[in-house]
Amino acid sequence: MAGAYDEMWEKLNLDLTAHEGLLQVLGKFYGDIYLSQENRLKGMEYMDFVLSEVHGLRIKEIQDAKANGKKIIGTFCVYVPEELVLAADCVQIGLCAGAEVGMESAERLVPRNTCDLIKSFVGFKLSRLCPYLESSDLVVGETTCDGKKKAYEAFAEYAPMYIMEIPQTKSDAAKALWRAEVRRFKARLEELTGKTITADDITRGIDIVNGKRKALQRLSALRAADPAPISGRDALLINQISFYDDPIRFTTQINTLCDELEARVAAGEGVAPKGTKRVLLSGCPMAVPNWKLPFVVESSGAVIVGEESCIGERNTRDLTPDAAGGVEAMLDAIADRYMKIDCACFTPNAERPGNILELANRLNADGVIQYTLLFCQPYANEAMKMEPILTNKGIPSLTLETGYSMEDIGQLKTRVEAFVETLE
Amino acid sequence: MAGAYDEMWEKLNLDLTAHEGLLQVLGKFYGDIYLSQENRLKGMEYMDFVLSEVHGLRIKEIQDAKANGKKIIGTFCVYVPEELVLAADCVQIGLCAGAEVGMESAERLVPRNTCDLIKSFVGFKLSRLCPYLESSDLVVGETTCDGKKKAYEAFAEYAPMYIMEIPQTKSDAAKALWRAEVRRFKARLEELTGKTITADDITRGIDIVNGKRKALQRLSALRAADPAPISGRDALLINQISFYDDPIRFTTQINTLCDELEARVAAGEGVAPKGTKRVLLSGCPMAVPNWKLPFVVESSGAVIVGEESCIGERNTRDLTPDAAGGVEAMLDAIADRYMKIDCACFTPNAERPGNILELANRLNADGVIQYTLLFCQPYANEAMKMEPILTNKGIPSLTLETGYSMEDIGQLKTRVEAFVETLE
Repeated sequence: MAGAYDEMWEKLNLDLTAHEGLLQVLGKFYGDIYLSQENRLKGMEYMDFVLSEVHGLRIKEIQDAKANGKKIIGTFCVYVPEELVLAADCVQIGLCAGAEVGMESAERLVPRNTCDLIKSFVGFKLSRLCPYLESSDLVVGETTCDGKKKAYEAFAEYAPMYIMEIPQTKSDAAKALWRAEVRRFKARLEELTGKTITADDITRGIDIVNGKRKALQRLSALRAADPAPISGRDALLINQISFYDDPIRFTTQINTLCDELEARVAAGEGVAPKGTKRVLLSGCPMAVPNWKLPFVVESSGAVIVGEESCIGERNTRDLTPDAAGGVEAMLDAIADRYMKIDCACFTPNAERPGNILELANRLNADGVIQYTLLFCQPYANEAMKMEPILTNKGIPSLTLETGYSMEDIGQLKTRVEAFVETLE
Repeated sequence: MAGAYDEMWEKLNLDLTAHEGLLQVLGKFYGDIYLSQENRLKGMEYMDFVLSEVHGLRIKEIQDAKANGKKIIGTFCVYVPEELVLAADCVQIGLCAGAEVGMESAERLVPRNTCDLIKSFVGFKLSRLCPYLESSDLVVGETTCDGKKKAYEAFAEYAPMYIMEIPQTKSDAAKALWRAEVRRFKARLEELTGKTITADDITRGIDIVNGKRKALQRLSALRAADPAPISGRDALLINQISFYDDPIRFTTQINTLCDELEARVAAGEGVAPKGTKRVLLSGCPMAVPNWKLPFVVESSGAVIVGEESCIGERNTRDLTPDAAGGVEAMLDAIADRYMKIDCACFTPNAERPGNILELANRLNADGVIQYTLLFCQPYANEAMKMEPILTNKGIPSLTLETGYSMEDIGQLKTRVEAFVETLE
């Protein structure tokens, strides 16, 4: 992909040499983990293409949108209400946070004992390697965890940050705070764009985002079939791409892919033989190209059937209801939809255990792998809490704590293989 | 102290054998660190006595109060409004969290990568070694950090937890949330005690707590003198004891001690020669008996002149204004007073850099040691942020990350000695 986009990347002030190296590593990694798979869906060709153009064509589209006056909103979390971003005629994109990039530089800005996702987005910035960040007119952070909350303060020296306060309980007072935050965000978007967001705009935003969620829900439902019609890697990739692709085009592509999946399921075909052990991944988000654990699991004789994660079910489970009654009612409906998310930032995060059990049951999972990024205290605590709950329901589980480094891949494989062997 | 209280401890379900061992270790540790000091104040005899009776006479008083119908409110944080606890005629006590106790058991309940303060309070419970916790009718947790917030969920299986939501910003909506939380806490206290809290009750609570704060402010101000009239260890101990001693008795004792300090300052006397290098400790709280770092600093040729910490200035800096207009206005005044606290849980924590600089200046500190508990992300982030701010003001600083283990004491001493040598 080098050459054609050099001028664009240079304008974005990327480190061209390091960037070329990053793309080469990414391409090799993708080839090993994705293109080596058998029985892939035809619909995945689109994903292969999108991924191959992740820093190319998609950035070009974003630059074109900017040239046409659109504003770009960068995000790190599923709490940013995309309905409002689209209502303001902006483009919302998830920012780079999934690769081991610039980790040493990052440790000059955030503590060593910070999770790799956070170090990665800081590292991408300090290394000048994320064209999404460099394209962003506003970067929306949120108070979901100590690590991000405090890292954003340092990051604000380098990026146009805007922070949304996510409350820590779901009390009425906490919900009122969040409703106020959603309104403050709408006002910020209006200030950024010079545009007044109308009820019609919000309806359009809700329709687009709900359409995307419905397509991803359809994909999730089809994964209940045995044999599994799609690999966990591919499904994760789709969820990852949902954060930065054009939402309307993406939704069309996913629905086409789901048609193909339905045909597969009807024909009893899949990516692995019927009876292959089925694993639900649960816990921390896996940002592009954090494919380490899915690759380990699916090369250990199991297939992943679901992602109980922000890049997965937590992002797609709830639709925003169509609210009558104008802008204020719509803003409340949007706020309330996001307050349903079962993030570990809440205390207690009461809905999550039931959601995990429901998902494991619905997807016919044989076991659950709880994935925690090293130094992520919220999900590490919840993993400890979930273990006896899963055990009591007779669902085998394995808790793995890891970062982005490949150093522990052998150890992970040993543990995962041993776990998969115990599944019945 | 064994023998006399065995029956009481047994009733509290303490592990008597392990508890006896703990008291012996504590006594030895206290002797080495405290009783070995020269030029101590006569007023410290009271503190020596209180500390020697930390699990004895004070627990006896608490049991007597319980027998007289008073409720005991245990806390882990300076955010719990003691004004209301006293208004409800309850006793407020800080709970055990400063010793390396039951750490291995604690790791069955909270993640390995959790700070020692949290592991300690969990460990004290699982080891049945904290008579304060066992005496508590209600234990008030708060959402100040991920580690505590999530640990409290697991801890709630073992203690009668009540959680207050501290917001993460100081926006109007966040302040409204906190005002609601203060009201919810008042209602909970009323429910617990069967008593309606009146304006007169709150006035009494405010008077007592402000009296304690004023005495500690007086102590802090006297430490500006050179030679330092009191050691940092002793001042820390006083602040630690302020969390569990009877507040009225304690205040009287501190004011008497301050009279003695004033005489010392007038006479130009102190605990170390004039010109001894003066260090401000800044960062995480040091709960009893976490005296490791103060001991290291004061046996490295320096004297500690202030604690920019929750067990220190953060707890005593702000008085609660006397509010006219009845209960509602008083509750708002109390809520607003606590929202001034410059805890690292806020983003941004805008007031803290200025507060640190003001304190360093007022106390004539030659340097600042930033102390962070290992795995405490909020204060680790702020330490990185403070470094250049201190440097720009020409104030030397050293950042130390450590836990409760004594394993690194040699390494800490080497670093502190080297730092003290650079001070001018």
